[in-house]
Amino acid sequence: MNFEMAAEIVGREVRTIVTDDDVAVETSTYSTGRRGVAGTLIVEKMVGAAAEAGRDLVALQALGKDVNARTRSMGVALTSCTVPAAGKPTFQLSEDEMEMGVGIHGEPGRRRVPFATADVIANELVNSILNDLGLKRGTPVLLFVNGFGGTPALELYLMANAARRVLGDAGLTVARSLTGSYVTSLEMAGCSVTITAVDDSLVALWDAPVHTAALRWAI
Amino acid sequence: MNFEMAAEIVGREVRTIVTDDDVAVETSTYSTGRRGVAGTLIVEKMVGAAAEAGRDLVALQALGKDVNARTRSMGVALTSCTVPAAGKPTFQLSEDEMEMGVGIHGEPGRRRVPFATADVIANELVNSILNDLGLKRGTPVLLFVNGFGGTPALELYLMANAARRVLGDAGLTVARSLTGSYVTSLEMAGCSVTITAVDDSLVALWDAPVHTAALRWAI
Repeated sequence: MNFEMAAEIVGREVRTIVTDDDVAVETSTYSTGRRGVAGTLIVEKMVGAAAEAGRDLVALQALGKDVNARTRSMGVALTSCTVPAAGKPTFQLSEDEMEMGVGIHGEPGRRRVPFATADVIANELVNSILNDLGLKRGTPVLLFVNGFGGTPALELYLMANAARRVLGDAGLTVARSLTGSYVTSLEMAGCSVTITAVDDSLVALWDAPVHTAALRWAI
Repeated sequence: MNFEMAAEIVGREVRTIVTDDDVAVETSTYSTGRRGVAGTLIVEKMVGAAAEAGRDLVALQALGKDVNARTRSMGVALTSCTVPAAGKPTFQLSEDEMEMGVGIHGEPGRRRVPFATADVIANELVNSILNDLGLKRGTPVLLFVNGFGGTPALELYLMANAARRVLGDAGLTVARSLTGSYVTSLEMAGCSVTITAVDDSLVALWDAPVHTAALRWAI
């Protein structure tokens, strides 16, 4: 509703792209249909590069829908975030529990489980994504391991390495990767894994120069 | 000792600069003399810019010592970090306690106090620094608010705003500022404030193009 209102008041022609990359939750108290999580970064980067290259609005919308359709994510939280206006954690986890499939605004996920190793977590996240995407062996993919805000880079790279191993076992090629805290839920500890099936033209859009507050390369 | 050993084995002429910007702790179980905390970023940025401009090693060392002498820091932690090899938090804080004057590796600080507002924290950090630096009114300063890893940007900017207010009340001019998680203690929640008394030549070194994993501007 908010995005539709924004599109109405912007005063020029606008097209919207709905991202719904989260494989964890089909519908919940908080959402109708799948939620969008960190996959929005992939869509924004590629559509942004195409816009800079001069593609028209209709083509950009089609591209965004295509990138979204090729993208799936799933996350895990080790702590909740505290939304400032609420003043208390959105949900409570005990010291040795994780929330599998957590949402981008700290919404609860699929289920709570005891702590597990990065390899076990990566197995569940990546395989949930791959079961949904249904890719042929040899498909090139973009791997994005996103921190939620309270997890150090050291642990994100550990997860990226574990996710690469699962992708390799599934016969998929990691064409590009990104690891860091980009789509965050304030100080939440945890991460999400996002996988996009790419081709040469999408890799070129990913590689195109970018200079934003968060992403900067090739400039 | 480690840095001296590194200087010995590097196989070319090396000069070292010891940073000791932390005003919180004069000596502790963990250190002899003052500790270096986030001020190292300021020294590295300015000396790096001078090195790229072709200054010789002796001049670079003198510059580094000068920047260090103009730089003071103090931090506050809301949680400890957990060093992976240790597997448990370096220190324990209860839910409503902060550690004032915490060290860059999670070493304990000056004292534990109950939670306070950003304004109260900024007052203590900035005034501790200013008491030590002894600057004349009107001196231009660089303000660096550094997150320890587990504190969202939202709260770091809140602290930056509060620190600016204290500096303004002291009659100091913020010539440049930087806010973000750059010198981190894994997932520790909290931040440090660093203040450097600058002049035009130091501002020029700060503004010089930089392209590292963390700092990127003017390129």
